[in-house]
Amino acid sequence: MKIDSVDFFYLSMPEVTLEADGSQDALLVRVAAGGLVGYGECEAAPLPSIAAFVCPMSHGACQPVSASVMGHTLNGPEDIAAIAADVAYNSMDVLQAAHTFSGIEMALWDILGKARGEPVWKLLAYKASYPKTPYASLLFGDDAQQTLSRARQAMREGFKAVKFGWGPIGRGTPKQDADHFLAAREAIGADGILLVDVGQIFIADVERAALRLDALQAARAMWLEEPFHADALEAYGALAQRCTGLKLAGGEGAHNAYMARHLIDYGKVGFVQIDCGRIGGIGPAKQVADYAVERGVTYVNHTFTSHLALSASLQPFAGLKDHAICEYPAAPKALAVQLTGNHLERDASGEVNAPDAPGLGITINAQAVQRYRVDIEIRVGGKTLYTSPQFRV
Amino acid sequence: MKIDSVDFFYLSMPEVTLEADGSQDALLVRVAAGGLVGYGECEAAPLPSIAAFVCPMSHGACQPVSASVMGHTLNGPEDIAAIAADVAYNSMDVLQAAHTFSGIEMALWDILGKARGEPVWKLLAYKASYPKTPYASLLFGDDAQQTLSRARQAMREGFKAVKFGWGPIGRGTPKQDADHFLAAREAIGADGILLVDVGQIFIADVERAALRLDALQAARAMWLEEPFHADALEAYGALAQRCTGLKLAGGEGAHNAYMARHLIDYGKVGFVQIDCGRIGGIGPAKQVADYAVERGVTYVNHTFTSHLALSASLQPFAGLKDHAICEYPAAPKALAVQLTGNHLERDASGEVNAPDAPGLGITINAQAVQRYRVDIEIRVGGKTLYTSPQFRV
Repeated sequence: MKIDSVDFFYLSMPEVTLEADGSQDALLVRVAAGGLVGYGECEAAPLPSIAAFVCPMSHGACQPVSASVMGHTLNGPEDIAAIAADVAYNSMDVLQAAHTFSGIEMALWDILGKARGEPVWKLLAYKASYPKTPYASLLFGDDAQQTLSRARQAMREGFKAVKFGWGPIGRGTPKQDADHFLAAREAIGADGILLVDVGQIFIADVERAALRLDALQAARAMWLEEPFHADALEAYGALAQRCTGLKLAGGEGAHNAYMARHLIDYGKVGFVQIDCGRIGGIGPAKQVADYAVERGVTYVNHTFTSHLALSASLQPFAGLKDHAICEYPAAPKALAVQLTGNHLERDASGEVNAPDAPGLGITINAQAVQRYRVDIEIRVGGKTLYTSPQFRV
Repeated sequence: MKIDSVDFFYLSMPEVTLEADGSQDALLVRVAAGGLVGYGECEAAPLPSIAAFVCPMSHGACQPVSASVMGHTLNGPEDIAAIAADVAYNSMDVLQAAHTFSGIEMALWDILGKARGEPVWKLLAYKASYPKTPYASLLFGDDAQQTLSRARQAMREGFKAVKFGWGPIGRGTPKQDADHFLAAREAIGADGILLVDVGQIFIADVERAALRLDALQAARAMWLEEPFHADALEAYGALAQRCTGLKLAGGEGAHNAYMARHLIDYGKVGFVQIDCGRIGGIGPAKQVADYAVERGVTYVNHTFTSHLALSASLQPFAGLKDHAICEYPAAPKALAVQLTGNHLERDASGEVNAPDAPGLGITINAQAVQRYRVDIEIRVGGKTLYTSPQFRV
């Protein structure tokens, strides 16, 4: 097969707020090769990501992502790796390139799986796929009471694990934060798994983060996620040393496998969380999963968008039985729900499985694409470099 | 002062080739505040960089760079740092943001220097600016003979140091590469400073890079630059251990100060090379310079574009007497030469100095902007988010 076309669809809710909710828009990628069509999703700013695909070349190491993708052969996983290497080299100076390529790469695996009639996790050499325990990924409430209600709602919906993130944490006093942590624990009961995500709020300030450790440990949080900037490895490492019965988690900011490995080696995280929509797709995520196994660190997906992204994010660790927790967007915006024709519903025991279907096993809902699409036109030097394409399934 | 406007000008040579020559286009940034105008330059892909400034918000941590810049107070260096922190946080998930902000940040320093009648290096708390020995930054020839001629030309032009980069190195045999290294040494004589840049060609393959060490050492190269991917810290560290009388150099890929520090701490480079047009501007570059001093590593600018970028890149280490080497684009394209009204010419002893003039001390040539400008128009959802502005000095 040869890659014939790559198209981007920017979808957005009518209103986008400052909430840390990544499901408010989406960048869907459709790739056609050998008569087959595959889909992927960039977890990224749509306009810069599209721009990085179509931009004029600045020089040999600053080429648009399209230059390394269009017309390339696609017959096996080794072709996907070769394209990824080309993008990394030819688009070395296009910072956005990794985000742009992430959705394309997923779509290439989807096509390859469809061509072979196999799920992507089998192409990744996993013999079996194991069920994952989904955690409801929620935002902290404005106050502890709201956090408590949201946690109760998740319990009513049958979740055994919840993660609270962002909101007011780190912006007020340690005591106020402690109230949120304890409210969440109260709501989920002694057996629930509690995870906390503070969205880089402490930047690189180990002491400010450390002021929250006692309360996190009292609330028996299993992990503290992203206390710091994605590259603040030393701060991660220093805080990790001060944790008792609590591990650090991070990695969603990794835009290549090196970064994720450094967070393991230098940042001493206990959980490495990879977003296939940012790290360059499923291939580099699988490399991180392999490395996590080697280093005794638990691999977890980062997913806050659609079930297309969720399926892609499950593939790299589908075959790792002991890496059993998975992020599951519990209250996504309508766009993220409607975007896919099918969903990875929890089974009778409340677990989630990577689809046992060709490719990523997810269909796209053309009506939703139509409903939420935002047209983009980019003209450079009098030429139209990009105009939103029509969507047909 | 308040930041009133930020404008981007995309300039390009009529023909852009695959050559690793970053002077083939430029992204000039003009900022107005308090009745003053400042200029900066992103060393970045222009279209994605502009897109990251104007893109619609995806969520609270994926806001356009403009959201953290427009209307912000600008009265002192602390305001620049505050804006930088806002961009890092609010545009956390816009990968391109650091490249976009880099040119803006330079322009903010330029304005502040003009407002105070002081060069930027004084605002950075340096008491004096020391001359730098420029190296002619050249590309390897197609064959060793061409490399030799280019080195001879640089010597005729009075350079005491030359750097050769990219071209065929790493693509053929180690013997072919050795011929280039030795040809360069032959041309520059025993006293010339020879630097070699291989542009990430070995990705993360320490053994392939190591095959070139003997020849580099025989040619008495002072540094080997960017043997690997910007994030391949372990490969840097492993190769550094095998070098004798040769140090590794790298850092131009750093898009924040953390990355540069990791290259020092884990990659064991002896020279850290910062492009102010990528790392987020002059502020983070100064942090890296301070850290380099602390760690006994030599700070060097990375500059392959105009003398606006050159002036900006000199500021962070202008006051470091012992960090005396500076990259100097020796054969830039006409656009990069014509873009500025004045140039940082070498003095009688062949040295280069940061301007002792307010701000960055560089004027912009309106005719050149007019001559090389490429108009861009970006429309999203029926609204024009960006259209190339008119340029008036």
